[in-house]
Formats: sequence, structure tokens, C-alpha cells
Amino acid sequence: MTSKIAIIAGVGPGTGASIARKFAKAYSVVVLARNPDNYNGVVQAIKASGGQAIGIQADVSDSKSINAAFDQIEAQYPSSNVAAAVFNPGGGFVRKPFLELTEEDYATALASQAQGAFNFAKRSLPLLLKARESAEYPPTLIFTGATASVKGSANFAAFASGKFALRALAQSLAREFGPQGVHVSHTIIDGVIDIERTKGFKFDHPDAKLSPDAIADSYWHLHTQPRTTFAFEMDLRPYVEKW
Amino acid sequence: MTSKIAIIAGVGPGTGASIARKFAKAYSVVVLARNPDNYNGVVQAIKASGGQAIGIQADVSDSKSINAAFDQIEAQYPSSNVAAAVFNPGGGFVRKPFLELTEEDYATALASQAQGAFNFAKRSLPLLLKARESAEYPPTLIFTGATASVKGSANFAAFASGKFALRALAQSLAREFGPQGVHVSHTIIDGVIDIERTKGFKFDHPDAKLSPDAIADSYWHLHTQPRTTFAFEMDLRPYVEKW
Amino acid sequence: MTSKIAIIAGVGPGTGASIARKFAKAYSVVVLARNPDNYNGVVQAIKASGGQAIGIQADVSDSKSINAAFDQIEAQYPSSNVAAAVFNPGGGFVRKPFLELTEEDYATALASQAQGAFNFAKRSLPLLLKARESAEYPPTLIFTGATASVKGSANFAAFASGKFALRALAQSLAREFGPQGVHVSHTIIDGVIDIERTKGFKFDHPDAKLSPDAIADSYWHLHTQPRTTFAFEMDLRPYVEKW
Amino acid sequence: MTSKIAIIAGVGPGTGASIARKFAKAYSVVVLARNPDNYNGVVQAIKASGGQAIGIQADVSDSKSINAAFDQIEAQYPSSNVAAAVFNPGGGFVRKPFLELTEEDYATALASQAQGAFNFAKRSLPLLLKARESAEYPPTLIFTGATASVKGSANFAAFASGKFALRALAQSLAREFGPQGVHVSHTIIDGVIDIERTKGFKFDHPDAKLSPDAIADSYWHLHTQPRTTFAFEMDLRPYVEKW
Repeated sequence: MTSKIAIIAGVGPGTGASIARKFAKAYSVVVLARNPDNYNGVVQAIKASGGQAIGIQADVSDSKSINAAFDQIEAQYPSSNVAAAVFNPGGGFVRKPFLELTEEDYATALASQAQGAFNFAKRSLPLLLKARESAEYPPTLIFTGATASVKGSANFAAFASGKFALRALAQSLAREFGPQGVHVSHTIIDGVIDIERTKGFKFDHPDAKLSPDAIADSYWHLHTQPRTTFAFEMDLRPYVEKW
Repeated sequence: MTSKIAIIAGVGPGTGASIARKFAKAYSVVVLARNPDNYNGVVQAIKASGGQAIGIQADVSDSKSINAAFDQIEAQYPSSNVAAAVFNPGGGFVRKPFLELTEEDYATALASQAQGAFNFAKRSLPLLLKARESAEYPPTLIFTGATASVKGSANFAAFASGKFALRALAQSLAREFGPQGVHVSHTIIDGVIDIERTKGFKFDHPDAKLSPDAIADSYWHLHTQPRTTFAFEMDLRPYVEKW
Repeated sequence: MTSKIAIIAGVGPGTGASIARKFAKAYSVVVLARNPDNYNGVVQAIKASGGQAIGIQADVSDSKSINAAFDQIEAQYPSSNVAAAVFNPGGGFVRKPFLELTEEDYATALASQAQGAFNFAKRSLPLLLKARESAEYPPTLIFTGATASVKGSANFAAFASGKFALRALAQSLAREFGPQGVHVSHTIIDGVIDIERTKGFKFDHPDAKLSPDAIADSYWHLHTQPRTTFAFEMDLRPYVEKW
Repeated sequence: MTSKIAIIAGVGPGTGASIARKFAKAYSVVVLARNPDNYNGVVQAIKASGGQAIGIQADVSDSKSINAAFDQIEAQYPSSNVAAAVFNPGGGFVRKPFLELTEEDYATALASQAQGAFNFAKRSLPLLLKARESAEYPPTLIFTGATASVKGSANFAAFASGKFALRALAQSLAREFGPQGVHVSHTIIDGVIDIERTKGFKFDHPDAKLSPDAIADSYWHLHTQPRTTFAFEMDLRPYVEKW
């Protein structure tokens, strides 16, 4: 088997699942999440529609767990090339007055978003470098950011610290690995995503939540850019979002 | 005739022509430039491949000229909807030590990039607003920026002033017209574009220049985003570009 | 007479007057404004408290006017050194929906903030370069920015374009003239300034408006920084300001 | 004893010592460092010149250590008010190609810069809030940033992640505690600091290194700003620094 694969970390019912479905049209997808319940649905859906997908239970913030997941990927797809890797975990979100924030709240945000991204990048990048020769599109590593990636709002000290750190990592990797032919990108998802969990969030206007499928289309667009014309960063928000 | 049109201002041999060709696959295109020699080739090429295109001589920095061009567009396409408008003129570029920069150098950069964008937006936006109902994709207004849009380098006082001002205009319009359903975007083209004029620019690496066609693909991607998921800004650069 | 002078353009009842008073403790000050009524009070106040000050009527957006003012300064202070120059005019402020903004509104904002700053810098910089040898502090050129220097809000297309352009100019000059020993800075005044005109603006909290005297203290601090340790940018806002 | 104190974490031979000396002119200073050798000199120097200073061994990245240090401060200065707290540790700096960076390198940068700042802020802020009533200047919390606070350069993935996270924390605290009357600031130290360790770094120009004493002057200036006119951020660099 010499097919190409895409690895997506942080697959729940929203953006991660949409990205998996989108990339599954071209590649075998491997989806990672702490809780298999989060990816079982999308893995089955992809298979049902003729695609290839597997899920691996993994916690990005734990290097042993992420290393075990990548060991399994390398064993299971020994002749495959990694066309794309997407870091999309939502862990570490917490909104609290600073003096109520615990040491663990803060550490968790850093562990999920920053150390987790480090762990994921450490194992992804050697595979992406290896895949350059046979790639139709430059091998791509995309990190999912948020409003908190560029603005440290009141009550968001922990999450913003994690997301700022993640953006720093993404910038540094883009500057180091871009010239080597790996496309590293960072997105800023600025708004509420339209998923089951946010059904109850009501807005004055229709279409006020981000579409996970439209986010996935933009990730795919980033992936298809040639090395002459790499985007590092794209901000995505609903038309009525204040910014 | 009820076809849809795209209006592209600033069409020379590079990005503007690629954007025109790309959008001509879906729309009739109207291209504007100060010098018809700049657009004659692309207008003929689009027609030769079965598309529809006209060129109109216009100087964006002169409101009379840009108003005459839009009057002609409205007369010639009375029942058409404007699906997209792209502001892409290159005028005002000058690289000089500040004390050698003339008052006119500076005024020209502001006139081309800022006042020109104002003139273009004033006539485009009412047409884009009118086109919302029948649009497949949200009507789109894209402004082309540059490295100088976000960094005022030494010897670039004039061009950076024009490009910073253009970005301010784009941000303000995105915040005002986004909620009304018009997608306003700004791109940051960070590097040398691969066109006839830059043939002589040699780099240590292959593919070190931006592909105009790849830029056009990203403009088209921006255009196709639904209003749930608008990007305001995308930076585009060759993989080896320092940033 | 070999005293040192400070030139402040844009002196009305607020920040400009406070800067003039602050710098008058060390230097002879020359204040410029379109309307002498704006500076007569501060000129008299400085003289009354033992300082030296003159006012010159000048419109920064008109190069002839600004050149005449600098010709007068050079004639009147032939042996003086220019220790500092501050660009602080408020012209070009307008808040309107974009489609109501006139071509002239937009042009005026660019002329006041961008072309005006160009005109002022063209005449100031040769004097600041000349003053390096005898300077106690590095000769300093400070530009006054605003919230609109870094954010293009809805209804602020004109003013933000002017202020973004001004910031571009300031950055470019800092990068060109910093290495030559002239300290170029830009401030971001983010909030309502406490002056006569804003007396009626009520806030829920006390001290919710910027103090012109405190702004002037920060300008003086920038001026006194040695060349080892130049600040380019400082943002100033009331403690309760949202940002 | 009802004197006011300033607490400075991260005191070595450079910026920290200069800040301690500067603030010791007005306050008793408490300096924290992992290694007492780093602060013994400055504590003695302050005492020798008539000031008051104590050093406490503490590792900011270890909450037990930092809590013990603050317990000691509160015991030793039961009636004192904390006028200022400065977070200035240099830990976590590492420059390596990403694939050579260890998990521990990355974790250390986050622990020193981000979690350390969290630990320090958790204990400082209640004291700063308490000090508001009797303060001459608004109680002040300053965090020291670097070039890597706003740019993720190649080979700086770890340090930039830590410094970006620290800036996020500072922004969030400024937005939460500013309106409560505590002045939270962040500086961007962009260049080589002129200390013993950098003696060997040669530049083409004189004065090409940042002066620790001039940095301290700017920290003091930030401290003295009234709540009407708070700066959040100031970038400091030598006149010849590229940026």
C-alpha cells in the first residue's frame, strides 16, 4: 500500500471531523482524540462513503501517548506518505477571573495547546519532510488558532497563553521548514463554531456561527498552495462577528 | 443579459491578468488599467478561450476617470450583477532615501493606493450590495496588499504609507460591509512576483518567486467562502522568503 | 543665541499645549497651528512662567505653508539646535458610514495626517541630523497616533487611512534615521483626551480620560532615552479603556 | 515599618539589578533569583548606598518556591505596601533547530516564562490591589518581553512560545486589573543587553547594546504613569538594531 495519509489530531464533532471528511476525499485519514467517542462517528462515516479512516486514542499533551500513536501510524502505513498533518485539539479552554484560575488550569492550557503541539510537530515533521518527493502538493502542517491567539482578553489568561504559544511555535516552524518545502500554516478561528454543543447559542443574525465544513475547505485550500505561494496565516470569522 | 461580472482594477502582465483569467471561468470580466497595452493581451486571451472580457482605460487615482469607467460598466451591463471587485494597481512604488523622496513621490503613492482604493470602493460597493440576492457566493471586494502593508521599511516611506492606508480602508470596509453580506478581504503579497519584468531577478533557490496563477487561486478561494466563514486577511509568500 | 529649540506642530488646547509646556522647561519652543487662536494661550503661558515660545501660523498639509514656517524658524534661530520635533495635528478626523464619506473627506485625512507628516519630517530631519553633535539627548522626532493607527474600525475609513499611513511613515523613518542617531517614535493615544471640548463626555468611572500633561511626560521620557535604548512605540490609554 | 516595597523576580547582573537599583531609590526592594550569587552583589550595593534590599532564593517556575518567597515577604514586611512587582527572569532561552529541541527544552521555556509569570502574578496581584489606597503611583506589575515575544523566528520555537505566552498573560492581566487600578505593562527588549556576559559580542557601531540602566529608567517611567494614562507596551532597542 502506497497511498497517502493525513493525520488530524483533535477530532471531535466539529472542525476536526469536517477536516477529516474533506481530506478523506484524497487521502487515508488517521484521526486522534483522547476519547474514541469523539472520532468513532467520523471514522464510520468516512468508511461508509468509500473512504479510508482509522482512529487512534491519544492525548497530545502526553508525549508517550502521542509517540505511541505515531509508532502505530508508522507500523500500519509503512509505505505511505504523510501529505498533511493538522493540529486541532480544543483542550485547555477556561474562562475565569485570574485570581480564581488554578495553577492546574494554567498548566493544562499550556500542556494542551503548546506542549501538545510540540509533541505533535516533533513526530509529524520528519514524516512530512520524507513525503516531499512524491507529494502532489507540498506536505502541510496546519495549526488551529483562535481569537485568543492574537488577543489576551480579560479572563482568558490561561487559554490565550496556550494559543499565543502555539502561534509562536507555528511561526518558528514555518520559518524553519518552509524553506525545506514543508508548508506550515496557522489559522485564527474567530467566532463560535456551529456544532451540536453550540446549538443553544443564539444570535440576532442568521449564519452567525462558523461552518466547520467551510473551515475545512480553507484548510484544504492551504494544503493545495504551491511552494511559490504559501499562506502562513488566515483568519476566519462569521460576517457579523465583531473584531 | 443577466450574467455576472467581475471587475478588476490594475491589470498588467502579472497578478491582475491571472485574476482576470481565473474569474473569467465563471464571470464576464471587466479589466481596468491606465494603459490599454496592459490589458489588451489578457482580454484577447480570455475571449480566445471562450470567455467574456472587456478592458476600460481608467486611472484609479482620478475619480473622474474611475467614475467614467463605472458609468460605462453600468451602461454596458445593465442587468448584470457584480460578483467580485478586485483592487490591484501597482502604482506608487518608489524606493528612495527619505530626504530624496519628493513631495510628488509621496503624494503619488497615497493617490494610487489609498485615494485610488477609495474611488474604486465607492463605486464597487453599491453594486456589490445590489448583487447580494442573486449571488452564488457572497459578493466580494479584495484589495491587494504587500510586505509594505504591515512593515514600514527604511526607504519605503511613500509606498508603505500608501499600503498601510489601503489596509486601514480594507479593515474599515470589512467591519462595515461584512455584516451587510459583502466579503471584504485584504491580501499581503510578500515577495517578488514571477512576471516578465522580474525575469532577471535571480535567487539561490528555484520557485523563489510568487506564482500569479497561485495568487489568483487564493483570490478565488476567498471569493467562494460563505458568509459564515469569511477570511479578512491572507499573507502569501514563496517558501524561501524571509519574513 | 545658541539655545536649543523644540518644534511642535498641531498645538491646540490639549496634548500639543501640554507638550509645549513640558518641553519649554528645557528648550525654546516653536508651536505651529493653522489657527493662531489655538496657540496664543500656551505661548503666553510659557512666557509668563519664564520660558521662551513663539507661535507660527502654518498648515502642515500645505508644503508651501510648512516650508515658510521652517524658513522663519531657521532665520529666527540661526545658531540654535533642534532638540525635538513633534507632529501632533488632529486634522482629518471624520466618522461616517463609508457611502456618505466624500472624496474630500478622505483626501483631507490623508493630507492632514500623512502628507502633513511628510512635509513636517522633510524639514525637521535635516535640522535634527545637524543637532546630533551638541545634543544632550538624541534629537527626537515624535508622531502622535491614535486607536485608528492600528485598527480600521467601521465608519473610520478616512481617519484610519491617514493614521495608518502616518505610522508607516514613522516606522520607515525610525528604521532609516535611528541608525543615524535620530530617535523617531510613534505613540498610540487610545482614548478620549481630557480637554475643554470633551468636558461633556461622561464615563461611569473617574479619570476615564487621558491627561494631556501625562501624555507630555511620556513624550519627554521618549526624548530622554539614550541611543542604546530607543522606544519606537508606546500605547497610552486610560485604565478603564476597552482595547 | 510602613515603607513601600518593590519585588523584582529574575535579578542577575543585568536588567534586574539595574531595575532593583532604580526602584531602591524610592522603595525597599526584594529581589528574587534561583541563585543567590546573582543578587548578592546588587543587594550589597543598594545597602551600601543607603537603600534597603533583601534577596530571597526562589525559582519562579516552581509554585512552592515562589509561594515560600512571598510568604517570607509578607512576614517580613507585614505593614508594607507593594508599590511595584517586576517579572524579569531569563530562563528558558534556547536556540536550536526544532528537531534537536528536546521535550524538556520546550517544557522549560514554558515553565520559566509562562508558568513562572503565572506563579508570580498570582501572589503579586493581591498585594498590588491592597496597595492601591496608599499608593503615590498606581501599583504596577511589569513583565519583561523580548524580540521573541512578537516574532517566532526559526530555531526559537521554545523561547518564543514561552515569551508569546507571557505576553498573552500580560495582556489579559492588563485588561482585567487595569480597570481595578493596577498598572500592568509589558516591555519588548529587542537587542543584546550590555552586560558582562555579552562583553564579547562585537558590533560595527558603538552603543549597539541596550543599557540596563536605561531600561530601568523606562520601567520607572511606566511605574509613575497615572491611571489616566497607562502604557501597556513599550519596545526598546539600540539605535542600530534591525527590526
